[in-house]
Amino acid sequence: MVKSIVVLSGGMDSTTVLHRVVKELEKDSEVHAINIGYGQKHKKEIKMAKIQADGLNVPIVFLDIPQIKDILGGSALTDNIDVPYGHYTEESMKLTVVPNRNMILLSLAIGYAVSIGASRVYYGAHSGDHAIYPDCRAIFVRTMTEVAKVANHMPVYIIAPYLNQDKGDIVIDGLRLGVDYKKTWTCYEGKVEPCGKCGCCVERAEAFEKAGAKDPLLR
Amino acid sequence: MVKSIVVLSGGMDSTTVLHRVVKELEKDSEVHAINIGYGQKHKKEIKMAKIQADGLNVPIVFLDIPQIKDILGGSALTDNIDVPYGHYTEESMKLTVVPNRNMILLSLAIGYAVSIGASRVYYGAHSGDHAIYPDCRAIFVRTMTEVAKVANHMPVYIIAPYLNQDKGDIVIDGLRLGVDYKKTWTCYEGKVEPCGKCGCCVERAEAFEKAGAKDPLLR
Repeated sequence: MVKSIVVLSGGMDSTTVLHRVVKELEKDSEVHAINIGYGQKHKKEIKMAKIQADGLNVPIVFLDIPQIKDILGGSALTDNIDVPYGHYTEESMKLTVVPNRNMILLSLAIGYAVSIGASRVYYGAHSGDHAIYPDCRAIFVRTMTEVAKVANHMPVYIIAPYLNQDKGDIVIDGLRLGVDYKKTWTCYEGKVEPCGKCGCCVERAEAFEKAGAKDPLLR
Repeated sequence: MVKSIVVLSGGMDSTTVLHRVVKELEKDSEVHAINIGYGQKHKKEIKMAKIQADGLNVPIVFLDIPQIKDILGGSALTDNIDVPYGHYTEESMKLTVVPNRNMILLSLAIGYAVSIGASRVYYGAHSGDHAIYPDCRAIFVRTMTEVAKVANHMPVYIIAPYLNQDKGDIVIDGLRLGVDYKKTWTCYEGKVEPCGKCGCCVERAEAFEKAGAKDPLLR
């Protein structure tokens, strides 16, 4: 049977990808999930990833490698630097860039895929990400797919189903698929309630607005 | 000043690359080294990496992520499986393949490069590796270079100076450069003396034979 992997952070994007993969794109395949921690502060995501995978009967593995912080340093997501507030378009948001993050996450996911014989790796890159995160752009996904085809004894295909859509489109699709967004976490800060002020919270609010829906995480 | 990174395992190939980079290819640049552990048994390599970097006044960082074994499993290099004896051309050697190893190592090295502003990452792939390790082939290095150019806010170039040469050529070049091969470790087993029987030891012996030299690790 064809096997697929979903890189599942527990945020909105990857959770929606998981639902779409299980319910539509790979409904006749064996779907697995992998959650990779890299020392980020927003550990609530991990709990959400577990809840979402369990809810869909998808086996999930957790890999936590906080020590990569030591060589990648300097991001507000991992270090003792305040998470900047504001819109992603602002210069300050560069503080949230973790060097080469997506290549590292995908290379680990591809390694896991090969170890269990899965030929497809799904992840949640979307068009709204690319301004400050170069590793969310289509050209990154395309070239990463090329390398994943030749790096192992079997080709692995990287698929980002929302690559040409934005976070609003993801929410629209997720609501259609029945995703419970109360059980996703987006805020870069790991507090009880979302801060509502960091780039992620601002973008999440815009996405729900575009979808004409209310964010269930907000009271 | 231009900065470069060398992925330094402490084996013969990467040690020779380090000497060539420091003494010839990047002698006017700032050279850094990174050693990445992934739970392999042959930890003696790590000690050798430190000795070699210190000897050339190259700052070295160590990243040890043994927990990746948990998702990549099934290799004799990391698991409780006997390292197979024999030549690399044999089917049994597939037990030494760690899924997607080089993409993982390079993606971490690229992350480190970006975090310190280095635009070049050198590593020790050579033509003798490709039979069972797909991620040592030229096509892997080429496509990995393409992805490394677009994954971050700055392009990073992957350079494998011995890609079209074999391990014998590396020893010939290393002896010319004054590499002390007594301070390198190759054997997949981490014992006091090299086993002389695993694929690595067999290949190391062939390399010294081609170079017309005696391996200083052997009595």
